[in-house]
Amino acid sequence: MVWDAWGVPAGHKPLSDGIRALLTQVFGISGQPVARREEGEVPLVPSALSETDHTGLGALIGREHVRVGDIDRLRHAGGKSTPDLLRRRADGPQDAPDAVLFPADHRQVLDVLAYCAAHGLAVVPFGGGTSVVGGVDPVRGGFPAVVALDLRRLDTLTDVDPVSGTATLGAGLTGPQAEEKLAEHGLSLGHFPQSFEFASIGGFAATRSSGQASAGYGRFDDMVERVLVATPQGTVDLGRGPASAAGPDLRQLFVGSEGTLGVITAVTVRVHPAPDAVVHEAWSFPDFATGAAALRSVVQTGAAPTVLRLSDEAETGLNLARTAEIGAPPVSGCLAVTTFEGTVAHTGARMREARDLLAAAGGTPLGPEPARQWEHGRFGAPYLRDALLDLGVLCETLETATSWSNLGALKAAVTTALVDALAAQGTPPLVMCHISHTYPTGASLYFTVVCKQLDDPLTQWSAAKRAAGDAITGTGGTITHHHAVGADHRPWMTAEIGELGVRVLRAVKRELDPTGILNPGKLVP
Amino acid sequence: MVWDAWGVPAGHKPLSDGIRALLTQVFGISGQPVARREEGEVPLVPSALSETDHTGLGALIGREHVRVGDIDRLRHAGGKSTPDLLRRRADGPQDAPDAVLFPADHRQVLDVLAYCAAHGLAVVPFGGGTSVVGGVDPVRGGFPAVVALDLRRLDTLTDVDPVSGTATLGAGLTGPQAEEKLAEHGLSLGHFPQSFEFASIGGFAATRSSGQASAGYGRFDDMVERVLVATPQGTVDLGRGPASAAGPDLRQLFVGSEGTLGVITAVTVRVHPAPDAVVHEAWSFPDFATGAAALRSVVQTGAAPTVLRLSDEAETGLNLARTAEIGAPPVSGCLAVTTFEGTVAHTGARMREARDLLAAAGGTPLGPEPARQWEHGRFGAPYLRDALLDLGVLCETLETATSWSNLGALKAAVTTALVDALAAQGTPPLVMCHISHTYPTGASLYFTVVCKQLDDPLTQWSAAKRAAGDAITGTGGTITHHHAVGADHRPWMTAEIGELGVRVLRAVKRELDPTGILNPGKLVP
Repeated sequence: MVWDAWGVPAGHKPLSDGIRALLTQVFGISGQPVARREEGEVPLVPSALSETDHTGLGALIGREHVRVGDIDRLRHAGGKSTPDLLRRRADGPQDAPDAVLFPADHRQVLDVLAYCAAHGLAVVPFGGGTSVVGGVDPVRGGFPAVVALDLRRLDTLTDVDPVSGTATLGAGLTGPQAEEKLAEHGLSLGHFPQSFEFASIGGFAATRSSGQASAGYGRFDDMVERVLVATPQGTVDLGRGPASAAGPDLRQLFVGSEGTLGVITAVTVRVHPAPDAVVHEAWSFPDFATGAAALRSVVQTGAAPTVLRLSDEAETGLNLARTAEIGAPPVSGCLAVTTFEGTVAHTGARMREARDLLAAAGGTPLGPEPARQWEHGRFGAPYLRDALLDLGVLCETLETATSWSNLGALKAAVTTALVDALAAQGTPPLVMCHISHTYPTGASLYFTVVCKQLDDPLTQWSAAKRAAGDAITGTGGTITHHHAVGADHRPWMTAEIGELGVRVLRAVKRELDPTGILNPGKLVP
Repeated sequence: MVWDAWGVPAGHKPLSDGIRALLTQVFGISGQPVARREEGEVPLVPSALSETDHTGLGALIGREHVRVGDIDRLRHAGGKSTPDLLRRRADGPQDAPDAVLFPADHRQVLDVLAYCAAHGLAVVPFGGGTSVVGGVDPVRGGFPAVVALDLRRLDTLTDVDPVSGTATLGAGLTGPQAEEKLAEHGLSLGHFPQSFEFASIGGFAATRSSGQASAGYGRFDDMVERVLVATPQGTVDLGRGPASAAGPDLRQLFVGSEGTLGVITAVTVRVHPAPDAVVHEAWSFPDFATGAAALRSVVQTGAAPTVLRLSDEAETGLNLARTAEIGAPPVSGCLAVTTFEGTVAHTGARMREARDLLAAAGGTPLGPEPARQWEHGRFGAPYLRDALLDLGVLCETLETATSWSNLGALKAAVTTALVDALAAQGTPPLVMCHISHTYPTGASLYFTVVCKQLDDPLTQWSAAKRAAGDAITGTGGTITHHHAVGADHRPWMTAEIGELGVRVLRAVKRELDPTGILNPGKLVP
């Protein structure tokens, strides 16, 4: 990915004249893009890696795989949250890891961790670099240097078992690489988060990622059958078969551990045959509450769509769910998208059942086209954010989840918190929301916030983020449904898991990472 | 439950003349029941609880709730494995906890744990007492005394949320009590393990129980949204909403912790409306491999039956799946049972889809009756075991799970291990097996072993159990799919989770239970 924005240059797209006009009218921005720097022009904080350590690490994984050049370091300088991108746009030298390591396999990761533990080097495991919560920030945590451990060379597909529907994926495979390799066996993973094109299998596991097809294929944590983890104390290899009562499920300690307890080097995941049939249908609901109740009836009845989502009135009105249509005349009501994948018989039966339920709950069918448009543009929204930031518009997202009965209250509380915190700074925002992940007992809420940037947008957003996080934990939501904790959500972790929960996490970390080299400043309060 | 057998006296049933004749013929047993002792006649090891501790604990929960009488102690002397029952049938004084405590609520459990930690008393959390793995044995673990903490007074249903489909159940509610209270709200939990009639909600959570309707409603660990745990260090309260990416899922440390990390006092669980429709259909398959492949196609396609099980040729031949028919003329092939619950539309569609898949995979439909017979007798098998033990026939069960592709190899390895270990002692067994829990990636295997008892049946079975456990871990199975670890599976825990996994468990235990009072000798190697 490019160093100061989402994705690849080919994906970037300018805003339409219609949107520019709208933004100028609503936010009073100038409409003139701010200047950005080429990666070769950016001054970096000098590398603090000693020559001794450079040589020592090079002896373990090959000196050519220990990179200290500016471009390598800059491309591992952090993730892709809006604050990250704002910091990259700021003047002055950029912080970056002191070296980037590219180990070849699990054994080399073990060796690197043992070396770094012995020599006091902080280690940031690095997959696709798509974190939006500061999860890969190059924090030294009191150590003289920090290295990024880029796992891209762990890119194998092994142990394909089409009978059981499992496969073992190297942590460094990106979403498309994993799907491509599985497709050679007629299989698919079906994990499509917005970060799909760049994020890695190890990152999905380490952050409890949830993809847009979670209604059908589950969250990534549901998919993990077995996890292989390198720690400074050796290897952890957990998972025997599809289910077990052999004590606590320790896999669930490492799934979501965000590189603080070890480095996930491979996962055995549940896969499925590439679907015979994929059918789409979009729906309109008069309002969000009616639409949410309709989604609830579908998921609680077990009608099992593959994708099930609902945009609120604001998001629907701006066509944010159909990025190609943004700026087109506003649409009323709330747009819902369903897709069904599987055998022809299965998708047909499921779609009929869901259709009956959605219609009975007050929905109006819109046919397949709006759902296809959503699918077509579904990885594009982060590019849109870059174009907005370039124009001086602040744009960021955040997400949570709660029970169905608390969904309306939580949506209102977060919206109010965001509006109040930004209006108080003279920059009233647009706040849009959608449900993208549904469960029998509740759903996620995903908020997009857009407002005019102030001169210090980091401080501006920080106040809004703090207000939203407090509203979430104060109204019974989880501080994150699928973005993970990183550095940014750490202030709310004690509210999330309690003091004793934090002590448990620390006890596990002490056991596996006694010197504390693993991803300092992330997750564990 | 009665002290030396399963269940209540009303449930006990003598074996039919046909079975007696069969057993006499196959195993050469005499057919004369052995004598059993009334609970009032049984000598006990004297209580080692000091008067100081009796008074101290009485001050916390009321002296009438600290019981040191023989009957109370005897009824908490352990679980219901075959070795447990054989030990009860042995002469001489029985070991038992030194006192049985009946706390009223979470606060009192906290107080008791703090007291016991301060005064060095071991604590065995006690639900229904149905453990078949030594999970509630009164082990003192180096402490002068051990108390059983009976949770039956924690029997409330609170926070019923019919919109979200959740409810909070006290740990001490039995299966029927929980269903009865939920039924008042039109709801059901749908967790029906064989121990359903006596086991408790806290026990289901602490042991990762899996019920016979797991295909439809999931394992108990899937149902737990939130868990409230009392530990010697205070309260752990985990779970916010239906899903979260806020770090490791620490709930999964306590679900399955078997009383070694804390005492689960309440769980918020997923519930569902009492189904509108329940339909049954039984199937016959020519052999186990064909039947297993058929079940696999159903679960991998997502046809979603509520119950999905398959007996092997031996179990089918003896009609073990239809206890009322045992002793009737042998049946060929392999019996499968399906049930479908939910709305009328949902069950109809699911049944049609499953029927097409099962027929295409070589199944012959048998109509609803054999499935109804299975359902009718499904909680009865443990009573049958008592009748067999009384006759001098050894009968025990064990279970595991593995991937679909490894299922045949694991079944063969465990069967061979059991047959060899018992034949070597001159008591060749009948070994029967069924699949009762299915997943997209694999299934459970549940074995029933029957043979003639030797004079020392504990040693006799111990050799068979050891051989089976080694075969399971050596052939890629989990040492337990739903019976938990307790004392009996502890020797295989290092094979199951590795040395580092064990260190992680110990680290968590040290943090929460630094004096080690909680359920000594269980789970943690």
